[in-house]
Amino acid sequence: MTDPAARPLDSLSLPRFCGVPSFMRLPLKSDARDLDVAILGLPSDNGSPFRTGARMGPNAVRASSVMLRPINPYRGVDVFAALRCADLGDAPVVPGYMPRTLELLEAAVRQVVADGALPLCLGGDHGVSIAELRALAPRHGKLALVHFDAHSDTWDKYFGGERHSAGTPFRRAVEEALVAPEHSIQIGMRGSLFGADDVSQSLALGYDVVTTDEMFVLGIEALARRIAARVGDRPVFLTFDMDFVDPAFAPGVQTPEAGGPSARETLALLRAMRPMRLVGADVVEINPAYDGPGQITSLLAATVAAEILALIAEGRGGAPR
Amino acid sequence: MTDPAARPLDSLSLPRFCGVPSFMRLPLKSDARDLDVAILGLPSDNGSPFRTGARMGPNAVRASSVMLRPINPYRGVDVFAALRCADLGDAPVVPGYMPRTLELLEAAVRQVVADGALPLCLGGDHGVSIAELRALAPRHGKLALVHFDAHSDTWDKYFGGERHSAGTPFRRAVEEALVAPEHSIQIGMRGSLFGADDVSQSLALGYDVVTTDEMFVLGIEALARRIAARVGDRPVFLTFDMDFVDPAFAPGVQTPEAGGPSARETLALLRAMRPMRLVGADVVEINPAYDGPGQITSLLAATVAAEILALIAEGRGGAPR
Amino acid sequence: MTDPAARPLDSLSLPRFCGVPSFMRLPLKSDARDLDVAILGLPSDNGSPFRTGARMGPNAVRASSVMLRPINPYRGVDVFAALRCADLGDAPVVPGYMPRTLELLEAAVRQVVADGALPLCLGGDHGVSIAELRALAPRHGKLALVHFDAHSDTWDKYFGGERHSAGTPFRRAVEEALVAPEHSIQIGMRGSLFGADDVSQSLALGYDVVTTDEMFVLGIEALARRIAARVGDRPVFLTFDMDFVDPAFAPGVQTPEAGGPSARETLALLRAMRPMRLVGADVVEINPAYDGPGQITSLLAATVAAEILALIAEGRGGAPR
Amino acid sequence: MTDPAARPLDSLSLPRFCGVPSFMRLPLKSDARDLDVAILGLPSDNGSPFRTGARMGPNAVRASSVMLRPINPYRGVDVFAALRCADLGDAPVVPGYMPRTLELLEAAVRQVVADGALPLCLGGDHGVSIAELRALAPRHGKLALVHFDAHSDTWDKYFGGERHSAGTPFRRAVEEALVAPEHSIQIGMRGSLFGADDVSQSLALGYDVVTTDEMFVLGIEALARRIAARVGDRPVFLTFDMDFVDPAFAPGVQTPEAGGPSARETLALLRAMRPMRLVGADVVEINPAYDGPGQITSLLAATVAAEILALIAEGRGGAPR
Amino acid sequence: MTDPAARPLDSLSLPRFCGVPSFMRLPLKSDARDLDVAILGLPSDNGSPFRTGARMGPNAVRASSVMLRPINPYRGVDVFAALRCADLGDAPVVPGYMPRTLELLEAAVRQVVADGALPLCLGGDHGVSIAELRALAPRHGKLALVHFDAHSDTWDKYFGGERHSAGTPFRRAVEEALVAPEHSIQIGMRGSLFGADDVSQSLALGYDVVTTDEMFVLGIEALARRIAARVGDRPVFLTFDMDFVDPAFAPGVQTPEAGGPSARETLALLRAMRPMRLVGADVVEINPAYDGPGQITSLLAATVAAEILALIAEGRGGAPR
Amino acid sequence: MTDPAARPLDSLSLPRFCGVPSFMRLPLKSDARDLDVAILGLPSDNGSPFRTGARMGPNAVRASSVMLRPINPYRGVDVFAALRCADLGDAPVVPGYMPRTLELLEAAVRQVVADGALPLCLGGDHGVSIAELRALAPRHGKLALVHFDAHSDTWDKYFGGERHSAGTPFRRAVEEALVAPEHSIQIGMRGSLFGADDVSQSLALGYDVVTTDEMFVLGIEALARRIAARVGDRPVFLTFDMDFVDPAFAPGVQTPEAGGPSARETLALLRAMRPMRLVGADVVEINPAYDGPGQITSLLAATVAAEILALIAEGRGGAPR
Repeated sequence: MTDPAARPLDSLSLPRFCGVPSFMRLPLKSDARDLDVAILGLPSDNGSPFRTGARMGPNAVRASSVMLRPINPYRGVDVFAALRCADLGDAPVVPGYMPRTLELLEAAVRQVVADGALPLCLGGDHGVSIAELRALAPRHGKLALVHFDAHSDTWDKYFGGERHSAGTPFRRAVEEALVAPEHSIQIGMRGSLFGADDVSQSLALGYDVVTTDEMFVLGIEALARRIAARVGDRPVFLTFDMDFVDPAFAPGVQTPEAGGPSARETLALLRAMRPMRLVGADVVEINPAYDGPGQITSLLAATVAAEILALIAEGRGGAPR
Repeated sequence: MTDPAARPLDSLSLPRFCGVPSFMRLPLKSDARDLDVAILGLPSDNGSPFRTGARMGPNAVRASSVMLRPINPYRGVDVFAALRCADLGDAPVVPGYMPRTLELLEAAVRQVVADGALPLCLGGDHGVSIAELRALAPRHGKLALVHFDAHSDTWDKYFGGERHSAGTPFRRAVEEALVAPEHSIQIGMRGSLFGADDVSQSLALGYDVVTTDEMFVLGIEALARRIAARVGDRPVFLTFDMDFVDPAFAPGVQTPEAGGPSARETLALLRAMRPMRLVGADVVEINPAYDGPGQITSLLAATVAAEILALIAEGRGGAPR
Repeated sequence: MTDPAARPLDSLSLPRFCGVPSFMRLPLKSDARDLDVAILGLPSDNGSPFRTGARMGPNAVRASSVMLRPINPYRGVDVFAALRCADLGDAPVVPGYMPRTLELLEAAVRQVVADGALPLCLGGDHGVSIAELRALAPRHGKLALVHFDAHSDTWDKYFGGERHSAGTPFRRAVEEALVAPEHSIQIGMRGSLFGADDVSQSLALGYDVVTTDEMFVLGIEALARRIAARVGDRPVFLTFDMDFVDPAFAPGVQTPEAGGPSARETLALLRAMRPMRLVGADVVEINPAYDGPGQITSLLAATVAAEILALIAEGRGGAPR
Repeated sequence: MTDPAARPLDSLSLPRFCGVPSFMRLPLKSDARDLDVAILGLPSDNGSPFRTGARMGPNAVRASSVMLRPINPYRGVDVFAALRCADLGDAPVVPGYMPRTLELLEAAVRQVVADGALPLCLGGDHGVSIAELRALAPRHGKLALVHFDAHSDTWDKYFGGERHSAGTPFRRAVEEALVAPEHSIQIGMRGSLFGADDVSQSLALGYDVVTTDEMFVLGIEALARRIAARVGDRPVFLTFDMDFVDPAFAPGVQTPEAGGPSARETLALLRAMRPMRLVGADVVEINPAYDGPGQITSLLAATVAAEILALIAEGRGGAPR
Repeated sequence: MTDPAARPLDSLSLPRFCGVPSFMRLPLKSDARDLDVAILGLPSDNGSPFRTGARMGPNAVRASSVMLRPINPYRGVDVFAALRCADLGDAPVVPGYMPRTLELLEAAVRQVVADGALPLCLGGDHGVSIAELRALAPRHGKLALVHFDAHSDTWDKYFGGERHSAGTPFRRAVEEALVAPEHSIQIGMRGSLFGADDVSQSLALGYDVVTTDEMFVLGIEALARRIAARVGDRPVFLTFDMDFVDPAFAPGVQTPEAGGPSARETLALLRAMRPMRLVGADVVEINPAYDGPGQITSLLAATVAAEILALIAEGRGGAPR
Repeated sequence: MTDPAARPLDSLSLPRFCGVPSFMRLPLKSDARDLDVAILGLPSDNGSPFRTGARMGPNAVRASSVMLRPINPYRGVDVFAALRCADLGDAPVVPGYMPRTLELLEAAVRQVVADGALPLCLGGDHGVSIAELRALAPRHGKLALVHFDAHSDTWDKYFGGERHSAGTPFRRAVEEALVAPEHSIQIGMRGSLFGADDVSQSLALGYDVVTTDEMFVLGIEALARRIAARVGDRPVFLTFDMDFVDPAFAPGVQTPEAGGPSARETLALLRAMRPMRLVGADVVEINPAYDGPGQITSLLAATVAAEILALIAEGRGGAPR
């Protein structure tokens, strides 16, 4: 069992609505030493091409995450018995200055890595992922990318010819040799396209692509196996854009795309994934201003992050106390 | 055909948005004499462990229920030709005083039972069910419980060691011998847990438990048969917590749990259930403050309550006029 | 390739949140000459029997439609390469005067038809469809109706004995010989009914009816074939009421009905439909005041309208550039 | 003291959030016999020239009115000791048929008058007032109008040349000789105008007009005296459009106009008015769909209606029990 | 200058939307040793007689308080140079068990007092104030109460004869000899009353009462002097119920009362108050579920709390750095 | 009278809710030739230090502006008889790239100036003003700034040492010699400060500063005269940040500050201002995601912009037709 200082507060002595909300009521710490996993907010929405406000995402996810409990029955693990976790708060950002912001985010993630912990990041828009990859790849080598999203985010340039936005990180990642596309997979693409070659640009970069429609043809078990086969024993970066899910389940995102999987289907897929060599992960594009009073997007994002924690815990031999 | 005084208003002479909204536009009455089914609000949220405000639930359900119509084509019944129904308004409560509130609620339900009607109650949080069971069991003997919920609500104690909350009624009900757990079933449990023994505590109490995942493996028809087999010809209390459904379909609840069934799947299950010896029912945990402008949770709760009415009507031989 | 003046703005030079939002960022024009398809708003909610405010629907759909892109990968068409399209703004209406409003709407649609374009209309409540049919039938003869809706809208009279409302257009259409019911189909009906003969009134008028439950028994492919077989080579009017979809996916409608298909199932059905002889279409009953901050109903309505455009484009030989 | 059956429920035995909400928790009755004042909803929004949905106004006002208490300390009256009051629910309407709706509303108000009670009506949009005046004038003769509003509503024709809308009742009232303009006063006009002669059209009809700016120059006491002097001992109809107040205090209206008085200033003016020969009154243009979760417009409308009740009670000699 | 560990985070190095939001971005601490002022959340809404959900108030105030800055120019003080401050998080509560909750709250406040710090508490509903008074009076003797509220909260019993609710604390406080009513003042009362003796019950208890109307007759300066004269050099408890302010400025409260002062008038009054011997304070009745997306009630509550901090700081000789 | 092509649509032939909403229903044009005033959206929120989303501001203002009418009775002008006006849509921006965005905005405004029209811009955050000043000053020389705002926006650097944000434009403007501070005035400053020298930094730059408190001491007429005296006959740039107004009247802003003037007081001040040599103006910081369903901030912003138009029209000799 881990140090009590790295476990959530007990909900029976202090009800879950009490206290400043850290992720899953974990301790707030200023560094990642002595941690297995560090939760880190990356509150940048510099790259948003449509709706913006994802800077408020990390705290919205924290506020909803207090409803979650430590035992994951799908994997049979007591997450916080297996993993020493804490919430490090948020990295700094500079609104309106994307390249400068990416440097600050990269430095914050790099420090977590240097401290020996796995960074589990909360976005922010998808533009933050390139900073995480830049911090992780020097340590682990080219990463296998497991990418859940309605959009492939492999544009070359976006507005004004600038190279960094929420629509470009996974082209940049290939160009900068941060990911190994031949071990990477993009899942969930759907919807209308800007150009006829959109369809092929991810394939041309070397990614495996599974559209939303193909997901339902394959089925969850086969898809989980395809992911496992693709990544092999590579170090893996898992990135989850909340617009992967249908807008009914995740209205609070920046670029919703109608016609996605349900929350139940999404969680079933995550729970079907077998332990892999995860070295970093994020859940991004949560925009609470568009989420409505029930804040269901934030709750689902918190649940996705907790499933990723359980996936890591199982990989490290976690079992129920 | 029943007395016109126990039927809804005619929507063609007075549009559905006109008039003070009683449940399905039924007559408002002060007692349950001469009724088959009495709608009764139990507006207590004393036991809420997270979000609160379910006291506003009964009137929110009433406001949405005016969109419903009297004929249920799934069972082929004209509900109000088969059943004399009225809305009795709400039982009194005492905010901040849970035991005292339970006494008041129990007395109100007991009066309905004494008047010879079946109580169909609108919550309020799930803590109200113990009051209903205390009012019903002395009349009918140990009840078979059919319980739809994302959570088993079989905790022993909650905050501060107190024994009554929205998380404890179905342990109390076994301890007080109000239900027969060997004839009872809990359906829909999912999500993370507080302790490794959460999984087994409902089973240890004697309940049959069907998780959300197991529901989808079984299928609707098999599950409906399993419910029927479990309850047999016992008197049944049916309790429906709106968080059974996925938060996309029911954002306006107190403790949403991501990854549940859809509204269509839920209604299909209710419609697949064959008539049983229902003696009481409730639909609980509706919190309109978290429901958004469309008030879809209230509409679904009203639809669930109307399906329960149709189940009762079919059991009493109702048929379309 | 079409005239650039009939294509959407380029999102890379002017981001999608910039500029006054026309449908899919198409040019705004004052007439339909030289167009293949004219987008026309019909902002009447005169006929709403419950919630009202669908007059704000056309602009809400426009605002969300800027998130859509021109290439439809499901049909492999570049919509605006195949079709010259523009947004004509809205037809005038007279609040509180339904017959007068229907005359104005009919005249506006008639002008589009006279100019040689196909009208794709945005509602407004379902009462507008009779005006469209009155404008189209004189040109094309009796139309085959393909009607997606939770309700059949084949009432005879509604409040006060008046003959025009959102609940009556498809009875009027038969009486006025605007549609050929024997080539028409209504899809998606569900929920409770006002009278025992509701079930049969659409059938009595001659329509084919597929309820929501029957849809799921048939499956998408079989249903698409049934639609195709029913309409044959008749000129078709396609009308899509947003309450066809479950309220979780479309909370912003006027008469939500719990238990419908998901957005993904809905779009799959539309995408499975093969080209037919479409001469007019509408998407109706969008009420943004009930849609919540994410405006997911408007986004889905825009997506449905874009799928209808792609269906037309494929029928006219559109292919990706 | 009045019959207990014509007093509000006791909030200490049944908390104010319990029970189906009638206006101020008064008894619901089906006729006005034996009443001094009848509350009657007029849920028509047929005449709305911009936002619509005021049909939901009467029930929204009822829901908020349960927060009000029976004693008015500003006038020193126990309202329900002085006046026998009940809530009669809503008059029927026909959406989309303004003239037919006005007939139904007029008939409902006429019946209240015939039963000997004063009608205090809840709108609905301002178009309903002409129906009230048509019901009242035959009994009382030409009425003195006391009209609070940001707009004068004295247009001749509105859309399509039709004569009845929310913008025309107080021209119609003069033309039909229902009001005596020389004893009438319009208070609160402000904002931009459609034509240069807007300014003078109310004056040309014979009304006294006090703009919002003039109100603040005059002061509350002087304005109260000017109202009293204008109406003299005529029978008075008081009509209160919620857009009189600034949109910060009443966002939930149909045509908000920036720059109005505050709620405190508004209530001070109503409380400064001395008893007059009131024979009818309404509070209109409440649109809860635009009111936000606090529903402050409905609460203020309920408070305005309660102040009108207190004004009536004082005029009939009410004093605290 | 104080220890940097007791000052807010620097907004230029970490933007205000970054990081878990403590009150004014102060350090989170687990005890009040070495502090001058301890911020403590009291998230109980057990006593709410109408709307409920104030348990979410403390975190809502924290989230908005990050917009505030450390220098108060109205008093010319650098608050955190004068006062060592930290946020202690929330005291535990037991939903549904008011007396037990009051014990827990009292214990938490008592510990702050024992540690030598002044408790500045964030509610929760007004029922929490009695717990604060019970913790403070044993240390300081009978307190002078300065009470801002639309309601006097001096009821004897509320629902079911129970003695503790949000409507009773200031009668209990007199009965229990916790306050000196002859040195106490209640400011802001307005609105309708339950009984004719409501008016006099606060006076009968010995309080000075200034209604909202009287406030505006007196003027801010005279009222500030009256408060100062009333409390003299007694130890003072200042309690601020957010419904003191008009609902336009504070929609997110539990029992809004139309017709109150504006935010500007309210802040001017607080800023006009001269330093007094403050020993405790609270800001209560914030209910974010009714506050709308702008969360203006929480921002105003945070501003009120910051003004109380500045009042304390000035009293302790604070001056700008 | 002006060309009908530069006047708003007639609301009686096409109701105001019909049609794609341009500002005040003016014609949409692609350039400013033959115009007196060009409405131009500047949808950048790159510089937002707290809430973000002002990119949606221009279209929100347009949507509410359709409620406004062409005649301004306060100045006795028919705005569109005096001025040829059109809406040019929005300038392009590059999210995440502030300097590049400022270049694009400057170019767009510069083109309007080159075409001979006065630019009336809709923000966007306050960071856009520096682009407008850079476009205007080369033509007109150093401008007199009339600046309404709760904050002085004269910071040197903001996050990360970068020089452009919503908090710095009016320091940059002095440094770049775009404004003449000795002829400029900042009005409305209030609230807490970051540093003790905040107070003096605007004065040190040479601006005249009138705080919110000083506004109310001075009175509207005296303040209007002080503005006039300060600017003299210089070319004037008027910039209006919506957070000047209290958050009750403008919740939908990015950095609300409690305790501001009301909408009525604000409009009275604008209406008291006498014609000056206006060469450009903007209304900024409108964030509709925080505005609530009534969208009162957008309506007030539209009203402010319309008052600025009327001020220009009066200056050019406009009079009612």
